[in-house]
Amino acid sequence: MNPKIRVTVWGENVQEHKLPAVAKIYPNGMHETIAEALRELADLEVQTATLDQPEHGLSEKVLDHTDVLTWWGHCAHDEVDDKIVDRVQTRVLQGMGLIVLHSGHYAKIFKRLLGTSCSPTWRQVGKKERLWVCNPGHPIVQGIPSYFEIPKEEMYSEPFGIANPDEIIFLSSFGSGEVFRSGCTWKRGNGKIFFFRPGHEIYPTYHQKEVRRVIQNAVHWAHPEGSRWMDTGPIVPIDITAAKNRARGRMLSQTRRTRLSLKPPSD
Amino acid sequence: MNPKIRVTVWGENVQEHKLPAVAKIYPNGMHETIAEALRELADLEVQTATLDQPEHGLSEKVLDHTDVLTWWGHCAHDEVDDKIVDRVQTRVLQGMGLIVLHSGHYAKIFKRLLGTSCSPTWRQVGKKERLWVCNPGHPIVQGIPSYFEIPKEEMYSEPFGIANPDEIIFLSSFGSGEVFRSGCTWKRGNGKIFFFRPGHEIYPTYHQKEVRRVIQNAVHWAHPEGSRWMDTGPIVPIDITAAKNRARGRMLSQTRRTRLSLKPPSD
Amino acid sequence: MNPKIRVTVWGENVQEHKLPAVAKIYPNGMHETIAEALRELADLEVQTATLDQPEHGLSEKVLDHTDVLTWWGHCAHDEVDDKIVDRVQTRVLQGMGLIVLHSGHYAKIFKRLLGTSCSPTWRQVGKKERLWVCNPGHPIVQGIPSYFEIPKEEMYSEPFGIANPDEIIFLSSFGSGEVFRSGCTWKRGNGKIFFFRPGHEIYPTYHQKEVRRVIQNAVHWAHPEGSRWMDTGPIVPIDITAAKNRARGRMLSQTRRTRLSLKPPSD
Amino acid sequence: MNPKIRVTVWGENVQEHKLPAVAKIYPNGMHETIAEALRELADLEVQTATLDQPEHGLSEKVLDHTDVLTWWGHCAHDEVDDKIVDRVQTRVLQGMGLIVLHSGHYAKIFKRLLGTSCSPTWRQVGKKERLWVCNPGHPIVQGIPSYFEIPKEEMYSEPFGIANPDEIIFLSSFGSGEVFRSGCTWKRGNGKIFFFRPGHEIYPTYHQKEVRRVIQNAVHWAHPEGSRWMDTGPIVPIDITAAKNRARGRMLSQTRRTRLSLKPPSD
Repeated sequence: MNPKIRVTVWGENVQEHKLPAVAKIYPNGMHETIAEALRELADLEVQTATLDQPEHGLSEKVLDHTDVLTWWGHCAHDEVDDKIVDRVQTRVLQGMGLIVLHSGHYAKIFKRLLGTSCSPTWRQVGKKERLWVCNPGHPIVQGIPSYFEIPKEEMYSEPFGIANPDEIIFLSSFGSGEVFRSGCTWKRGNGKIFFFRPGHEIYPTYHQKEVRRVIQNAVHWAHPEGSRWMDTGPIVPIDITAAKNRARGRMLSQTRRTRLSLKPPSD
Repeated sequence: MNPKIRVTVWGENVQEHKLPAVAKIYPNGMHETIAEALRELADLEVQTATLDQPEHGLSEKVLDHTDVLTWWGHCAHDEVDDKIVDRVQTRVLQGMGLIVLHSGHYAKIFKRLLGTSCSPTWRQVGKKERLWVCNPGHPIVQGIPSYFEIPKEEMYSEPFGIANPDEIIFLSSFGSGEVFRSGCTWKRGNGKIFFFRPGHEIYPTYHQKEVRRVIQNAVHWAHPEGSRWMDTGPIVPIDITAAKNRARGRMLSQTRRTRLSLKPPSD
Repeated sequence: MNPKIRVTVWGENVQEHKLPAVAKIYPNGMHETIAEALRELADLEVQTATLDQPEHGLSEKVLDHTDVLTWWGHCAHDEVDDKIVDRVQTRVLQGMGLIVLHSGHYAKIFKRLLGTSCSPTWRQVGKKERLWVCNPGHPIVQGIPSYFEIPKEEMYSEPFGIANPDEIIFLSSFGSGEVFRSGCTWKRGNGKIFFFRPGHEIYPTYHQKEVRRVIQNAVHWAHPEGSRWMDTGPIVPIDITAAKNRARGRMLSQTRRTRLSLKPPSD
Repeated sequence: MNPKIRVTVWGENVQEHKLPAVAKIYPNGMHETIAEALRELADLEVQTATLDQPEHGLSEKVLDHTDVLTWWGHCAHDEVDDKIVDRVQTRVLQGMGLIVLHSGHYAKIFKRLLGTSCSPTWRQVGKKERLWVCNPGHPIVQGIPSYFEIPKEEMYSEPFGIANPDEIIFLSSFGSGEVFRSGCTWKRGNGKIFFFRPGHEIYPTYHQKEVRRVIQNAVHWAHPEGSRWMDTGPIVPIDITAAKNRARGRMLSQTRRTRLSLKPPSD
């Protein structure tokens, strides 16, 4: 009875074809490994989409049937068409959840929604990452102990140029002493956003069970709770007359609207 | 399969016995009218509790089995025992939802959780209140049009001495021109809090269908999503020894843990 | 001794030349009227910039010497060059204050920084607007009574598609009963942002003393407090070597830094 | 001309008299060392107050003349009189800045303002703490490099039971790999609050120049910017009659006000 949550896993799918080391870890692409983790759950309906597909696999129809979108990109952010970014942003504001993974912090869609540089500091060096849970009762960390470790990951460090999060879910420390806000949430419009740091392409991070569990949890958390927020925008006056005309599908010129009896709600 | 959401409706239940005007509108007490609205929903399990009961009806056991608590109080805030307030606060931090109604803004528990005066400005005068929806996609406003009206309500006005809300759900305007943040959300610990302004005792507000719908929605929204956040507090060191022992499935007493060499996690 | 706050008042300056009604109220342009209000204060150094100037009057040099930028635009948002928007955004993240006025809510820079649609609902109808102060101690409302009125203004109404504000300074009600979050603050990077609703071009709003006072206060509030946040971005590793060299007062070229052994901070 | 910022440095001043190790590091009390750091700045006027004084040194008069209060306490939180806590809270809501130091996270006033448990996890073990700056442009970190180290400090770890901060200024990592939100800001009413983690009594932390610089900066940042927010509370109706009478400079008793015709602002 309860309809499934429809998830679209977006992957850049570039380095998998260029770097043998990545192809070896993710022979079917990183998006397939992430999708596979989500397919473990019976209440999710999972599809993938990649940069090289028409409209990057994110047509109006696909997005219209997506409840939660996960986003992994790294070296080809600039190749994402601004029109598709507009479209994804609109869906997030309507209520679609968005899970941004690792270097997706530099994805156009993430920078667009946060309004900031989204720049971390980093070193391309394999270090042990330890992720600490900041709210053990949060739905995103169910089944996760007070911390977990990833044996080797790319090191990120503060400052991280993000808009102040609504919640901090994970803080990381690295073997080299750096720290990072590795799990953060925001809301934009009616859409929930979760950024989750781990996932450098040259490490088998998305095969690790704790990482998979966090993404599974995040999809459930980000699932839209209410109806779609369809922006009324500038052209729709709030009054009974306009509402009637909307129903009739007609755009009213300001002149015409003025001629109608624009009775405000009475006091 | 899906267990019911367990709601406790708390009512001060004082003016109902003192003021005939109130008794006439709410012959079984305001809490019963609110409970009745929630009992319309099959997925809720609803009980009531009142000030005059032992422990104000909020024993450890009752709270332990409460997912969402609604709170209405007005003239007897000071009679609520601080120990019970401590207990309710602890449950909210663990994850219990809290819906604070009308003059409950001055309840000890609300001031305790927000940290501010929670003072509005007001006039005890019956005015038409119009509540405007600020996010039409939010779960709390499902089924509510862009605004709805309450024919007569007590007038509140800004400034309202609250900690900045996480979300503003409703703004009110009154027939006399005043405005108020009438629906606001916060999170404290793992608990969700919703304040909803309407409900002066001398008006039949809780009989109005839009008001009932908002409270019904809010209970669903405030329902705990994750596990209980049981504060570890000072006595639980996070260390590799404990982690190893956790792995071995053993619970350590604090005494034992102190005797172990508390080796930090190795880098 | 205390250096002046350098303000740049940006104006679209289009309707002033097209609509006689606007030209009559603002014969030198709306930007000149706003600048004039700010020039009343001896501690401000005020210049203007307009859309029709090269680089819209917002060259690197101009922005580099601007502490606070005010922005009014309405009918020509799309004509603002994206490169200039990038530049303004970068300066805000570094710490420049930004005051967005009236229909500037649809300016590219405002939508860029907030990440949302920034859509209000509105009717082009002259109504009395009453602005209520939500925090009477806030620096932006110093000298403003608990509310003030603008005799005729364009009506805006909720929902207003903004990211949740850090603070709500003003709420408006209109003669027709609508409400709006008319004064809101956000922080992005190190920059403070204030949106202030009034200022439709066909009314003499920027001649009104309360409105001028709020903008004056907001400029003082938005003035950068700290140093510029120059994003380190991807190319600057944080390591002990760099720290040592910083201590020696030397700037390292990226080339040189790459050649150094990037030893992490030792534990 | 510019009046000095008046700072009151509050110290528990208990362990200094009980533990020789503490007395040796802070022979005149920790509060005197902190006050001494602030007295380095010519624009501050610094006094101290301690638990053992009448009213804990925080009389109405003292608080009335305090712009920023710093708070250090550890083992005697329960001995702080609730009436004094009420008084301090009221002043913070009016606009007084509050700097909470180290184990002051468990001070009644901090828990009161945040509404949460404020529990960290910790181990009483001397570890190197490294504090990372999260916004290098923030006024609180001026003069502080991208990170600084404290050779030995008590270890704190997440989860930290705080209300979500408005800003995160510092994140710490410890030699043992733990992480902590060590510098956070909030606003309550018109008052700014800064929590700064370092300062365990058995280490000479408040003699370290970076720590002193942060506290100096924080006092400047927390300094009230606007007027005092004196809560109007229940007894002051906002109406045109009251406004007229305010204009005439008369205070109205509630009785008299009731007798006046409380005409709402006219639409």
